Amino acid sequence: MTPPSDRALVPFVSVENMMKLVHHVGIEPLLAALADAIEEDFRRWPEFEKQPRIPAHSEGGVIELMPTTDGNLYGMKYCNGHPRNTKSGLQTVTAFGLLANMHTGYPILLTEMTLLTALRTAAMSALAAKHLAPANAKVMAVIGNGAQCEFQCTAFSAICGIDTVRLYDTDRAATEKAARNLAGRGLSITVCDTAEEAIEGAQIITTVTADKRNATVLTGNMVAPGTHINAVGGDSPGKTEVAADVLHRAGIFVEFPPQTRIEGEIQQLDPDYPVTELWEVMAGKTEGRTDQQQITLFDSVGFAIEDFAALRTLHAYVQETPYHQMIDLLADPDDPRDLFGMLLRASPQAELA
Amino acid sequence: MTPPSDRALVPFVSVENMMKLVHHVGIEPLLAALADAIEEDFRRWPEFEKQPRIPAHSEGGVIELMPTTDGNLYGMKYCNGHPRNTKSGLQTVTAFGLLANMHTGYPILLTEMTLLTALRTAAMSALAAKHLAPANAKVMAVIGNGAQCEFQCTAFSAICGIDTVRLYDTDRAATEKAARNLAGRGLSITVCDTAEEAIEGAQIITTVTADKRNATVLTGNMVAPGTHINAVGGDSPGKTEVAADVLHRAGIFVEFPPQTRIEGEIQQLDPDYPVTELWEVMAGKTEGRTDQQQITLFDSVGFAIEDFAALRTLHAYVQETPYHQMIDLLADPDDPRDLFGMLLRASPQAELA
Repeated sequence: MTPPSDRALVPFVSVENMMKLVHHVGIEPLLAALADAIEEDFRRWPEFEKQPRIPAHSEGGVIELMPTTDGNLYGMKYCNGHPRNTKSGLQTVTAFGLLANMHTGYPILLTEMTLLTALRTAAMSALAAKHLAPANAKVMAVIGNGAQCEFQCTAFSAICGIDTVRLYDTDRAATEKAARNLAGRGLSITVCDTAEEAIEGAQIITTVTADKRNATVLTGNMVAPGTHINAVGGDSPGKTEVAADVLHRAGIFVEFPPQTRIEGEIQQLDPDYPVTELWEVMAGKTEGRTDQQQITLFDSVGFAIEDFAALRTLHAYVQETPYHQMIDLLADPDDPRDLFGMLLRASPQAELA
Repeated sequence: MTPPSDRALVPFVSVENMMKLVHHVGIEPLLAALADAIEEDFRRWPEFEKQPRIPAHSEGGVIELMPTTDGNLYGMKYCNGHPRNTKSGLQTVTAFGLLANMHTGYPILLTEMTLLTALRTAAMSALAAKHLAPANAKVMAVIGNGAQCEFQCTAFSAICGIDTVRLYDTDRAATEKAARNLAGRGLSITVCDTAEEAIEGAQIITTVTADKRNATVLTGNMVAPGTHINAVGGDSPGKTEVAADVLHRAGIFVEFPPQTRIEGEIQQLDPDYPVTELWEVMAGKTEGRTDQQQITLFDSVGFAIEDFAALRTLHAYVQETPYHQMIDLLADPDDPRDLFGMLLRASPQAELA
């Protein structure tokens, strides 16, 4: 059997290589690069094909596909959300992704996306806050200190200049884990006993709990005028974190309304409740925060264009670094019509002949 | 950095390993196993979540996602169709696929699917013919001798008892390639100069050309009563092979009507033109061929459940054979909430500490 041709090979970034790449670039610089790429792609939002993600629900969770294309490249992410996985030592969310050439249909990158999604979600949150949070915000409360918490804190430090985080989780061990991981990254860290304590003096409140149910971690009287709320954990049908009265007081900013109305905090509101598309703020088509007293809320659910931006950023790094392996993903016979002949020539008998 | 845990690893079947596996099992036995698995899954059709495939179109072709689930397993295929690819030495169709556990969302198999799709498409065609073709059919005409041709011939030999194939293609070199590859596989092969010559004495006509346009390789007066037509090449909007008058004379059998009405030969007919779902024939819910004079037509476009059946068949073989490699696709921190800590511990500085 002849070795596979170059055309048959696709770079694959394993979890191990992703971690090496992240440290090669640096966590903070990579978060900033992801935020820049997302902003670039949000500014050219109309160029993308967009659809709500494609779910397959089971009792324990959901598997989703998130495809998009700008006409030149095609990005697709597979991810799952299974909140009870942690009980058996598995991740709630795992993901992998693919970038392909729209003109040939050939994949050009396959990658783990559990880590990359954690990074892009944090970069997206910080990017939204860059456009929406009050000027000179320095203190962020983080309610929910699970897997996403430290990524959020690091992104807000790198991208928005946050210097203090106030952490709260119903499980103190999670908060201690987050505080330990964040030590030495230039952030002042306060471990809090209640959500109320966490939000004291915070200009930004991040909610990022993981229960798959309608919870209320933030109610109206808790939120001071001028606060920016980064609502990350309400991200599937039946899973919300912010009370409706907070939503009614806030200016609400979303990624892709047809998806957010299904999955986001605004699933609690009327289907025609006014929201602002974040891309329009970034493209200068509409106003973000209107005044220093306004409560702004980014109803984050995660959209395919963010993964697309992350995939093309990663693809550029892959060209320049050794942190990938080539896998033989594509059949590539010498004559494209001779797939069967390629198979025959790979038989042990053919090898002997 | 500690090595990834078993949970992080997913078996990957490369093209090279797929070819080794096919030869280990044998081409004909594997085609028969795929047909059996497809038939099993078609018989329990109502258990599956079904949707038309999810396309992203470009000028040169289409990229498609084909997900389905039976509630226990989740199968997904990525494939492209870019007819002009052959001009630059690329495959018209490439594909890869994934099988996952619905209860955890964790992928359990990643595989090339260019070869596997070629095999399952042929197995599906032969399976349909097993239910629809006239009794004791021995001779098959194959119009279009591209990449799928030899797979079709081999499957019809293994599954339907076809002993003679009559090959025609507008490009004689394609026919000669197919005849060469099929030599020595127990089939009598006739190279024909015209489509009309190819169908002489054939009880089954397979059309499997590749042009992305409405072509007419089969018109009404060419098709004798009692023929079974296996229409494989008409499989995307604007791409058909069989004249409408042939369709009007035939009993038409399809996989998933909402998809076939978009992509199949029946895109030429009224949206409510009566067709029979093949799964109902296999499940004994409805009749297949009604008499020996009926023209039957399988309007094949390829459906996600066929890929699901192929993926679960492959997964079983992967358990028993060495023809795969384990890839580090999933992030698996010791504590699922400690994804950031896992990343930190992989830093070169942590390695030195």
